[in-house]
Amino acid sequence: MTIPNKTRLLLITTALLASIAASVVNAEDTEQSLLARARSLFKELPDSIHVDDYPHSAARVALGKSLFFETRVSSDGRMSCAACHNPSYHGADSLALSVGVHGQKLPRNAPTVFNTPLLIAQHYGGNRASVEEQAYKALISPLAYGNANFAQAEGKLRALGYAKMFEAAFPNEQDAITAENWATAIGSFERTLMTPAPFDAYLKGNTKALSTEAKLGLEKFISTGCAGCHNGTTVGGQSFQKFGLTEDYWLATGSKEMPLLKGRDKGRYHDTSKDEDLYVFKVPQLRNVAMTPPYFHDGSVAKLDDAVRVMARLQLGKKLSDEDVAHIVAFLESLSGAVPAQFASVPALPVAGFQNQ
Amino acid sequence: MTIPNKTRLLLITTALLASIAASVVNAEDTEQSLLARARSLFKELPDSIHVDDYPHSAARVALGKSLFFETRVSSDGRMSCAACHNPSYHGADSLALSVGVHGQKLPRNAPTVFNTPLLIAQHYGGNRASVEEQAYKALISPLAYGNANFAQAEGKLRALGYAKMFEAAFPNEQDAITAENWATAIGSFERTLMTPAPFDAYLKGNTKALSTEAKLGLEKFISTGCAGCHNGTTVGGQSFQKFGLTEDYWLATGSKEMPLLKGRDKGRYHDTSKDEDLYVFKVPQLRNVAMTPPYFHDGSVAKLDDAVRVMARLQLGKKLSDEDVAHIVAFLESLSGAVPAQFASVPALPVAGFQNQ
Repeated sequence: MTIPNKTRLLLITTALLASIAASVVNAEDTEQSLLARARSLFKELPDSIHVDDYPHSAARVALGKSLFFETRVSSDGRMSCAACHNPSYHGADSLALSVGVHGQKLPRNAPTVFNTPLLIAQHYGGNRASVEEQAYKALISPLAYGNANFAQAEGKLRALGYAKMFEAAFPNEQDAITAENWATAIGSFERTLMTPAPFDAYLKGNTKALSTEAKLGLEKFISTGCAGCHNGTTVGGQSFQKFGLTEDYWLATGSKEMPLLKGRDKGRYHDTSKDEDLYVFKVPQLRNVAMTPPYFHDGSVAKLDDAVRVMARLQLGKKLSDEDVAHIVAFLESLSGAVPAQFASVPALPVAGFQNQ
Repeated sequence: MTIPNKTRLLLITTALLASIAASVVNAEDTEQSLLARARSLFKELPDSIHVDDYPHSAARVALGKSLFFETRVSSDGRMSCAACHNPSYHGADSLALSVGVHGQKLPRNAPTVFNTPLLIAQHYGGNRASVEEQAYKALISPLAYGNANFAQAEGKLRALGYAKMFEAAFPNEQDAITAENWATAIGSFERTLMTPAPFDAYLKGNTKALSTEAKLGLEKFISTGCAGCHNGTTVGGQSFQKFGLTEDYWLATGSKEMPLLKGRDKGRYHDTSKDEDLYVFKVPQLRNVAMTPPYFHDGSVAKLDDAVRVMARLQLGKKLSDEDVAHIVAFLESLSGAVPAQFASVPALPVAGFQNQ
């Protein structure tokens, strides 16, 4: 049988069109399937968090913002929340290891403050249940604010002239300047520091919010196993995990001894003394990870692509191709949100000098 | 002769009215006379300074702003111009004695950065001719940024990714990242940090811009002799003077030994080794003085009223009444301007970590 040329052309064209249509349907299938998988693992950020335990008010957030930047409550007049959580560095400090009061080198890297109220706990060891507990205990930590006790810190707040701001923030209290209220106010401010990112627009259904590379990276992030720990609203920060599951972190990266920890960093073990907590850390959130190098609890890795390689190797026993790493990095970049405007504008603080002689 | 009651009343009323009119004329005379005296001694602030040696551009100011807040050029990753000149503390740091790189206690108090390009020189000893020279030399000062040499600082700027910003700010240069351009850019930003105050509105002719107390204080400030040194656009900062003219500052205030100066602070003598420079300091500007305690080169006095009393005693041999002090303080408060908006909004800096292990 011979088919006339014209008919042949028609058949070929029809087949081609059907094939293109199928591929479009497949692409759309893939797109929707990836979105569905992403939605099953991750959740978009709220604009800000308001929980019953920590009711907001404009006065409370304003007080918390001032206290966040206030250095004179610390024993050297230089430490503040902002010292480690700096607007210029996306809510972190850019240092491998943070520095505490009186210039003490701390054993761990400071994470960004953004979105932290959503985490399972605070600190790499998870030894603070909430941002409020973190702020509260920092006041008397010899590494953080270095006050001898809460009364000393409260006395400084009174001397600095904070009475009216505390009264406005806690209107029904007799003596509003307390360490608890300091912590609640700072928490109120921190609970406004959410950083919605292109990935949130994607999760809402705008599949064009991510580049092709970022979507390939998202798929690889899931299929490689990264999302096994780095999941939820904050893409991590929801669980604890041993660092170095398939290889010893210490041997693999040549990490340094930490004088303050009397040797290597043993993670939650320092708080619990339980063998099962050896080298177990809170899984870091990955929101804004591209904006907050260096990486890991000791800041030992400078570049995000290297951090991705180290994680695949030590946690999953995998060696990723350069292309896969580049795609995962593109996905991680889609987790970066803007510095909240209320954080980038530094408050003018009450006028009073600090005698550090 | 008897004067009828009605006529007597008329005469009394007329005399009274004439007296009131005379007093109004006298008050207006006094008002205008004080303004004229003030205008002969002081000058209103420009909005910002643009001098031929340091031409501005938006790109140059933007670069200068980033560099002002940039900590990673310093040897400990924590020092920046903003470390001592903080938006939260009106361009100063609130400390009695500032702290340099690696936590070194410095021998002197940090002044506000506002309006400083208008001063005769920089530093209390006046050993920097301009804000640009100050920024330039800070890069290699072991107390400030602690770089071994300019090449090291320039290398850090390149590694941090500043090339494009320098090229935009210095478009006609082959290799724009230089220590000189670092200094010029920071100076460009600082030359925008002017803080016009109620006193400027007064000097422009709005005599209602100052309260009655402030005007009484202005008169007292002039008649007591304060304006002999504290004059010009910046109400001081235009000359050098011995601290302790009528009494020994050291003995009168019990000031402390400064380890870095190997004893007491001898002012310009540390730079010149000339006897006539013993205890000679730059006269500080008084703009924003009410916003930037503690006071003097060593930050030894906490309150502005006490600082006024010490100055009257040690420089003029006078004991002021409490009322006079209160009026002078009211005048000094009229020298406070708002924190410039471009200074209160902290820039997002290039993304790169700092290895401080």
